[in-house]
Amino acid sequence: MPNRSVYFVSDGTAITAETFGKSILAQFPGKPRLVRRPFIDSEDKARQVINEINVLGATEGKRPVVFVTLVDLSVLAFFKAHCKGLVLDMFNTFIEPLEAEFAVKSNHRVGRFSDVAKSQEYHDRIEAINFSLAHDDGQATRNIEAADVILVGVSRCGKTPTSLYLAMQHGIKAANYPLIPEDFERGKLPSMLAPHKKRCFGLTIDPDRLSQVRNERRPGSKYASLANCRYEVNEAEAMMKREGIAWLSSTHKSIEEISATILRDIKPDALAIY
Amino acid sequence: MPNRSVYFVSDGTAITAETFGKSILAQFPGKPRLVRRPFIDSEDKARQVINEINVLGATEGKRPVVFVTLVDLSVLAFFKAHCKGLVLDMFNTFIEPLEAEFAVKSNHRVGRFSDVAKSQEYHDRIEAINFSLAHDDGQATRNIEAADVILVGVSRCGKTPTSLYLAMQHGIKAANYPLIPEDFERGKLPSMLAPHKKRCFGLTIDPDRLSQVRNERRPGSKYASLANCRYEVNEAEAMMKREGIAWLSSTHKSIEEISATILRDIKPDALAIY
Repeated sequence: MPNRSVYFVSDGTAITAETFGKSILAQFPGKPRLVRRPFIDSEDKARQVINEINVLGATEGKRPVVFVTLVDLSVLAFFKAHCKGLVLDMFNTFIEPLEAEFAVKSNHRVGRFSDVAKSQEYHDRIEAINFSLAHDDGQATRNIEAADVILVGVSRCGKTPTSLYLAMQHGIKAANYPLIPEDFERGKLPSMLAPHKKRCFGLTIDPDRLSQVRNERRPGSKYASLANCRYEVNEAEAMMKREGIAWLSSTHKSIEEISATILRDIKPDALAIY
Repeated sequence: MPNRSVYFVSDGTAITAETFGKSILAQFPGKPRLVRRPFIDSEDKARQVINEINVLGATEGKRPVVFVTLVDLSVLAFFKAHCKGLVLDMFNTFIEPLEAEFAVKSNHRVGRFSDVAKSQEYHDRIEAINFSLAHDDGQATRNIEAADVILVGVSRCGKTPTSLYLAMQHGIKAANYPLIPEDFERGKLPSMLAPHKKRCFGLTIDPDRLSQVRNERRPGSKYASLANCRYEVNEAEAMMKREGIAWLSSTHKSIEEISATILRDIKPDALAIY
């Protein structure tokens, strides 16, 4: 798709259009230019974006692809009538069969998040973020029994970003606790973790990758050396095996993939948050 | 939609199916039960989910709604042939018109995030998370000039979760810095912020809401009192106005909405990360 521009146009944050559009585009070779246009909730605002898209299409000689999530049917109709891009209407395509299935009309309310800031679910998500921050890197043990999951593993294996992602995206109270050389010498889990073993989930990482990551932080240190990384990873995996703690490797996985796996394993029948 | 169950079935993390499906469901009244089934990448795994859905539909007397993002066409065909839910195929619906537009076949690759863990973009996102954590609540001023944005505002107005969301979702290096009573007495921005005013973005909040939030932390304190919250919010807004710092209110906004607005304002022509 050389020189192809892709727009995400929404009357809300455009997060849905962007998340979804990107996963569709990933099925095609090439790297399109991406442009996000949130909060397009009137004909006036739509007109500006349409002009921009039409001019760009003429300049580039190829019509832009436009993923739209526009709830207001009159804005959507205006958009479709005037935009010369390839408009992919992500909302109404699925709303119509659901209206038939539920035998009700949809409410065409703009903004998935409207008033969400006052909902219990949103409150719980923010609380989860605060919890995960307070229990990052073994900082606090107070109230650790409130954790939904405690990620354990060697330093720099991905515990912190995964904990924060679990909290932010899924409202999971995720603490994390490092396994350090002193633990390996003692040959035991940190005593603070022992009563909570059932809620522990391990992360491991390829020693070469770990050494690379640590070298970015502390170049040339013993901490970052491949020999030390091999030692720590070996010991950590042996400890998790001995203690019966499930684990996975973060080496080739994004925090999204790690989190989806952890959720499936710790809460196999969990309903998604709504 | 009483008693209606909704499934998100994907050969990847199911994040796309869930984000998109939820925004569609938000257009309907009622609260369906939601179930996430990630990593369904073979007929065998599909068969298990299909059985689960078919049994549940029979028990509940209403067929479940099933949002699927299945890239593998044979698994998708198997799913459509045997699942008795209302299957909404979110992927191929849009892939076909794009194949026609681009005049290429899509690659039907499973997993938007495959190998992403090694990409520069992913690396930058993780770095942004680390940066935002290190520069939370005015903790570190070292390297602050690397910030894409510095959120300022009174304690508990939403700076920390917004910073982390900007980093995690958008790869933005977002620092945050509190405005405290001492700053208001001096009548000046913290000296550390002065050279970086152009990159500051303010958050404010309704004093009643702020008092409620602070009372959850420190019930009955002067810090949480409505009178003090009014004072701090007034002073903070006056200071931002004086200093020419753009701001918005977090009172009725989610971190997603706040972030989308900040991004639009600080990087109006920014291309989305791909």
